[in-house]
Amino acid sequence: MPTVRYVEYNDASPEVRAIYDEIMFVRTLDFVPNFYKALASHPATLRRFWENLKTVIASRRIDPLMQELIAIAVCSVTNCSYCIASHMKAARTLGMDDEMLGELLSIVSVFSDTSRLAAGYQMELDPQFAEANLNHV
Amino acid sequence: MPTVRYVEYNDASPEVRAIYDEIMFVRTLDFVPNFYKALASHPATLRRFWENLKTVIASRRIDPLMQELIAIAVCSVTNCSYCIASHMKAARTLGMDDEMLGELLSIVSVFSDTSRLAAGYQMELDPQFAEANLNHV
Amino acid sequence: MPTVRYVEYNDASPEVRAIYDEIMFVRTLDFVPNFYKALASHPATLRRFWENLKTVIASRRIDPLMQELIAIAVCSVTNCSYCIASHMKAARTLGMDDEMLGELLSIVSVFSDTSRLAAGYQMELDPQFAEANLNHV
Amino acid sequence: MPTVRYVEYNDASPEVRAIYDEIMFVRTLDFVPNFYKALASHPATLRRFWENLKTVIASRRIDPLMQELIAIAVCSVTNCSYCIASHMKAARTLGMDDEMLGELLSIVSVFSDTSRLAAGYQMELDPQFAEANLNHV
Amino acid sequence: MPTVRYVEYNDASPEVRAIYDEIMFVRTLDFVPNFYKALASHPATLRRFWENLKTVIASRRIDPLMQELIAIAVCSVTNCSYCIASHMKAARTLGMDDEMLGELLSIVSVFSDTSRLAAGYQMELDPQFAEANLNHV
Amino acid sequence: MPTVRYVEYNDASPEVRAIYDEIMFVRTLDFVPNFYKALASHPATLRRFWENLKTVIASRRIDPLMQELIAIAVCSVTNCSYCIASHMKAARTLGMDDEMLGELLSIVSVFSDTSRLAAGYQMELDPQFAEANLNHV
Repeated sequence: MPTVRYVEYNDASPEVRAIYDEIMFVRTLDFVPNFYKALASHPATLRRFWENLKTVIASRRIDPLMQELIAIAVCSVTNCSYCIASHMKAARTLGMDDEMLGELLSIVSVFSDTSRLAAGYQMELDPQFAEANLNHV
Repeated sequence: MPTVRYVEYNDASPEVRAIYDEIMFVRTLDFVPNFYKALASHPATLRRFWENLKTVIASRRIDPLMQELIAIAVCSVTNCSYCIASHMKAARTLGMDDEMLGELLSIVSVFSDTSRLAAGYQMELDPQFAEANLNHV
Repeated sequence: MPTVRYVEYNDASPEVRAIYDEIMFVRTLDFVPNFYKALASHPATLRRFWENLKTVIASRRIDPLMQELIAIAVCSVTNCSYCIASHMKAARTLGMDDEMLGELLSIVSVFSDTSRLAAGYQMELDPQFAEANLNHV
Repeated sequence: MPTVRYVEYNDASPEVRAIYDEIMFVRTLDFVPNFYKALASHPATLRRFWENLKTVIASRRIDPLMQELIAIAVCSVTNCSYCIASHMKAARTLGMDDEMLGELLSIVSVFSDTSRLAAGYQMELDPQFAEANLNHV
Repeated sequence: MPTVRYVEYNDASPEVRAIYDEIMFVRTLDFVPNFYKALASHPATLRRFWENLKTVIASRRIDPLMQELIAIAVCSVTNCSYCIASHMKAARTLGMDDEMLGELLSIVSVFSDTSRLAAGYQMELDPQFAEANLNHV
Repeated sequence: MPTVRYVEYNDASPEVRAIYDEIMFVRTLDFVPNFYKALASHPATLRRFWENLKTVIASRRIDPLMQELIAIAVCSVTNCSYCIASHMKAARTLGMDDEMLGELLSIVSVFSDTSRLAAGYQMELDPQFAEANLNHV
């Protein structure tokens, strides 16, 4: 159950409605997802989030499908059901099949595993890795 | 400071040494990282982890650079310094420049942001997203 | 579905019932929330938690509304639905409106964003910040 | 060790330098923190983050000290050392003393405790809490 | 709602079916849990996970009940409902009663509390602890 | 660098000193760890934490070594270096060897892995698990 009332399209202020229109156009949706209808309870937050998302969408070196895979990776760690369902739909539309999803979740799992082992054993950073990062240019 | 003694190459059992050799060959390293030298304090864990990593490396649909970007994304959320330094080196070697890194960390940040907003507002999943996932095949 | 049976008021031991009475009085509730009815499956845990909560409630420098906002912030990061719903109710009762909630969740999001960027870029602490903390008295 | 080279003020582009100037003015600092010098390796990320932060700073219902306390709460859960040191300095400047900090960290601890207990016992949301959130307006 | 179609026993390939059989035998279940039926959408992930789990089950120094308690501890922090329900069933079968569960969740809570306090106060490691770990052999 | 000044034994109030004495006695230490010297900057927090810890120590069904293993598991997920070093020392003193530590961290890793897979695939809880938990008594 949401913790605010959704702002429906017909009840929205002109400013919010303009953002809704842009969201549906850019993300090729024919409805306003509940996520945005909840954010609209505080228009500054809706605007802030949407500006952020547009910056991400404008990425030139990481293509749209890969953006969605990274989003699924992040949300599998933060454990956000809504986000996962939403990014899965986008990734499926962009061509993700079960094999790609399986590989993705294995990568997430194994590197999440690495984090636990590194925490438990508290390994020190090898100087070779540190130098590599400083001198990569 | 590590919580176990590192198992140095010269002190390792033949079984551990064989895994060390394979790690250096597959990852084209001329040293054994501390990460593996700590895991070797419990050879079954070293073997388990390395088998897992080889499964990931064998991914066919997600290329090596993208694997490293996803690894950086995951470890930025789990906040593992060792892992980040190690994956950064690998990603740099595979061609990641500052622009790609900047785009990656923005994607991570914005979708981590989504998770917080979704938690705080507890939005319900839109039936359109749910259906899409069930019917994607 | 809970992982223990709730201890209902009428089935509770006198010790548990006394804590239930105190909870309802201090938090001005006319029912015992499921949270406490589950904790009561191990009375020592119920007692421990309630003693902790009373310490927090006794805060003198952070007022009750602000305590609830901080609770919502923490639970948005730990992603605890039950906690969020419960603290939302308390915060609403104390006067939180949608604008305050929107500002709160933006603060949570932006500083969660900071954490990801700081992890990904591994910035070193500026000596000016370190000194300030040591010398603040 | 950072994973990019810091962009020093004297080496920065006019666009980045303008943001640096604004940061130092708004946050009353006489230096550019490493955090921003790393973000500047990808100017779009620096600009995005700074725009976000200005939105937060413009909060009207949550005062600057309380913003910093919430930031410390969030970063204590995400475990970001850089962020904690930076927000501590800001909070100290705004008047946070050891008593306020102690109360804050107790609130964070106790409600982080709640999250673990709610996860372990999987309590169901009481209908009284759910209704309260829907009907609060 | 799952993000892939479950692979039912009757629709599974011989390889997947053999793993299903082994899972039911080793874990003494008379059904294939949804967890494995979802993993089977990518057989390499099912195989990888199951090999990992068998390694854990083969632990000699940490008995089966204690393994389940540790699993519940981990999943209470990662906040995974499915995992908690599944490990609770296993732990109950192995003899965990409400007292043991209450003690377990208190341990999880108090040491999760420690983590928040250590983050907020950024205590430095006492040399006595560091030395002890290095010299324990 | 700590964010408060440590309260040294000789500078402590009689109330704080009494708690320090009890800590050293109960945990058989000949020094006051920095953790407690930082908490003492807010005596109510020191007292609250120590009361919590004594409740845990009084566990009857989970022995001291197992308590430390669970603590290491939790702190490997929350990624708290100080906590890990401190619990490692205690566990080593109680008899944990490298094999037990290796098994422990594998359990933590594999069940942290489970959490990621369950998040990514969003499996539904099997009714058999749910019923088992309700009917265990």
